Amino acid sequence: MKIGAVEAGGTKFVCAIGDENGQVSEQIKIPTTSPKETMNQVINYFKEQQVEAIGVGTFGPINVNKNSVTYGYVTKTPKPGWSNYDFLGSMKKELNIPISFTTDVNAAGYGEAVQGAGRGKENVLYWTIGTGIGAGYVQNGEFLQGISHPEMGHMLIRQNPNDIYEGHCPFHKNCFEGLAAGPAIEERIGKKAVELDQNDPVWDYIADYAAQACVTATLVLRPDIIIFGGGVIHQEHLLKKIRKHFKEQLNDYVDVPPLEEYIVRIGLNDDAGIKGALLLAAKELS
Amino acid sequence: MKIGAVEAGGTKFVCAIGDENGQVSEQIKIPTTSPKETMNQVINYFKEQQVEAIGVGTFGPINVNKNSVTYGYVTKTPKPGWSNYDFLGSMKKELNIPISFTTDVNAAGYGEAVQGAGRGKENVLYWTIGTGIGAGYVQNGEFLQGISHPEMGHMLIRQNPNDIYEGHCPFHKNCFEGLAAGPAIEERIGKKAVELDQNDPVWDYIADYAAQACVTATLVLRPDIIIFGGGVIHQEHLLKKIRKHFKEQLNDYVDVPPLEEYIVRIGLNDDAGIKGALLLAAKELS
Ligand SMILES: Nc1ncnc2c1ncn2[C@@H]1O[C@H](COP(=O)(O)OP(=O)(O)O)[C@@H](O)[C@H]1O
Ligand SMILES: Nc1ncnc2c1ncn2[C@@H]1O[C@H](COP(=O)(O)OP(=O)(O)O)[C@@H](O)[C@H]1O
Ligand SMILES: [Zn+2]
Ligand SMILES: [Zn+2]
Repeated sequence: MKIGAVEAGGTKFVCAIGDENGQVSEQIKIPTTSPKETMNQVINYFKEQQVEAIGVGTFGPINVNKNSVTYGYVTKTPKPGWSNYDFLGSMKKELNIPISFTTDVNAAGYGEAVQGAGRGKENVLYWTIGTGIGAGYVQNGEFLQGISHPEMGHMLIRQNPNDIYEGHCPFHKNCFEGLAAGPAIEERIGKKAVELDQNDPVWDYIADYAAQACVTATLVLRPDIIIFGGGVIHQEHLLKKIRKHFKEQLNDYVDVPPLEEYIVRIGLNDDAGIKGALLLAAKELS
Repeated sequence: MKIGAVEAGGTKFVCAIGDENGQVSEQIKIPTTSPKETMNQVINYFKEQQVEAIGVGTFGPINVNKNSVTYGYVTKTPKPGWSNYDFLGSMKKELNIPISFTTDVNAAGYGEAVQGAGRGKENVLYWTIGTGIGAGYVQNGEFLQGISHPEMGHMLIRQNPNDIYEGHCPFHKNCFEGLAAGPAIEERIGKKAVELDQNDPVWDYIADYAAQACVTATLVLRPDIIIFGGGVIHQEHLLKKIRKHFKEQLNDYVDVPPLEEYIVRIGLNDDAGIKGALLLAAKELS
């Protein structure tokens, strides 16, 4: 089967060709400019390739409610031209094939749930900590969503009193994303996050906040596994620190799997999003 | 159709007879003593009544995972004799009929979703603030659960710096339940919660904490509606205060329905649990 995948980001779109097993055979990158310019290139690429279905994982927020008249739209975004853009419709009009449409983090979470660190688990929570913080939750192959997709990155958490940074979120200042995403780390320390010593207390704050998000998610969702990906998670020492805080915070209130198996690093690394999108497209056909 | 319902609490079991529309025709109360003594009376009542199915909503934590060998058990509880008790199995052995088994808050949430304040909504979150704090989430008639049922009452929230109470939770001190359940209010003020003036700042703290729980639940679950029940919610002024804090905290980050329709009081009051259990039993038969 020949299948397409799109990973739509703020600076570039990755378009890939692959198969129903998530194997990628080729891919191209298209800069994110205006919707018209970018999407024309995306559509032409898939037209030439004659794929049977496409999976899209995109920046958001987007409308994922299939009963809505604006299903498939980007909703409000600071990216010029993209607010209220009919992303899915623009593709459907030109390519008469099944298209699966979800958030970038949901696509990566799906990849992780099916072929990555969550393989074989029923209830998989995937967090990404990068330029922003987001999460996707996959239960038996289906995304959790209500009136829209989750926005877990903006949870309100308890700031460590020694962490005097005011926070980076334009809506909430010191929500989880406002304190722990890459730009928040870098504004706090005045240099690249990668340059920060791994014993610096800032990493301990970040781990504390990520652990709180895991405690809350554990109590609300009761997942089998919590997987972390995203640029900031290149700091491998973070996982151990997150587990330590998690253990203290949850204080054995509910049973969870052994923490080395419960709170883990991403399995597919940078391929999670594209593989997830391919698998979602394949699911659309089956 | 003649159906049974059980609302199993720490001090008493309510057993009711009713129909598939949630109409109750009679009910009895049985004191909660030892599992053997209490359950014998429960079982004998339903044997005599010859019901076709039973819905059970019980105190927990319980095992709700149908694939588990200890499905239907009470897990660990401070109630003497009830830890690791095969609640569902003891009923199934004596009554050879379909039995639906879930938490007390799930049963009430189901009642609210189907016939109460959540009627007609797809994604219904139900909170109870009473002796403890718990929540149930119903999506298109199904409970959200992962490896077990939610325990949202123990979310970690931000304590108001003016609220110097240390918290009541034996696991987390100042989690949501530890700060906002009835016993926490009463320990803080040294009198019954019902005696507290409705302009007292303590109500504002409670509303702040409940609002934070709603913000988190909104970002994780994206429900259509959030319904509050339980003894503490007899304070009708609380809802307005919760909405005010919620608006400030969420700061319009995601769209939600108008707050008067989004954060609401329970519709069925004390009948939610029994009605929910009847409806769950009826569902078991259909
Ligand atoms: N090795 C690293 N260590 C710590 N932080 C990193 C590292 N690499 C990238 N980051 C952080 O991750 C962020 C980018 O996240 P990434 O997931 O790569 O991109 P995006 O979220 O835009 O898709 C940057 O803000 C940077 O601070
Ligand atoms: N009118 C009221 N105003 C404020 N609090 C109340 C009121 N009635 C009951 N409560 C509180 O609710 C708690 C009991 O909650 P309830 O939901 O009735 O029982 P339970 O949670 O045990 O099923 C008590 O701790 C009490 O403090
Ligand atoms: Zn925020
Ligand atoms: Zn607690």
